[in-house]
Amino acid sequence: MILAKIHVTLKASVLDPQGEAVGKSLHALGYDEVQEVRVGKFIEVKVDTADFSMAKERVREMCEKLLANTVIEKYSFELAEVAE
Amino acid sequence: MILAKIHVTLKASVLDPQGEAVGKSLHALGYDEVQEVRVGKFIEVKVDTADFSMAKERVREMCEKLLANTVIEKYSFELAEVAE
Repeated sequence: MILAKIHVTLKASVLDPQGEAVGKSLHALGYDEVQEVRVGKFIEVKVDTADFSMAKERVREMCEKLLANTVIEKYSFELAEVAE
Repeated sequence: MILAKIHVTLKASVLDPQGEAVGKSLHALGYDEVQEVRVGKFIEVKVDTADFSMAKERVREMCEKLLANTVIEKYSFELAEVAE
């Protein structure tokens, strides 16, 4: 079994209203040192295979087709062997 | 400047309907090897300080007070020095 840990984040050039809202809330709570907040997704996908090179290609496809909107988001992932 | 990379995920005992929906969509696309999907948040917070031990404590507080709902979510984070 392989676990893919996928990060999907907005591209740097894309405005992040959710991150801005969180930043404002942190300021309101007194965290004045906060400069910038960006909010993205962290997706864990467990795949039933032991073939890392195939898993890498399939997970890349999943990101391209469904998990990320590549017009405004970028993604990265790492794979790790896990117990069943 | 320190960048905190924060992962907020549902506790293992908590149902994840969003993850289930993504899993079903992946199956519908033909990714039958997908066993389980969990969806969490990935939050990047840039803080204007060079003091790592203070940043660690302040970011922990931010997670407890605002970024995570500790009843159903757990969080972890790492800190890294970044250019201004």
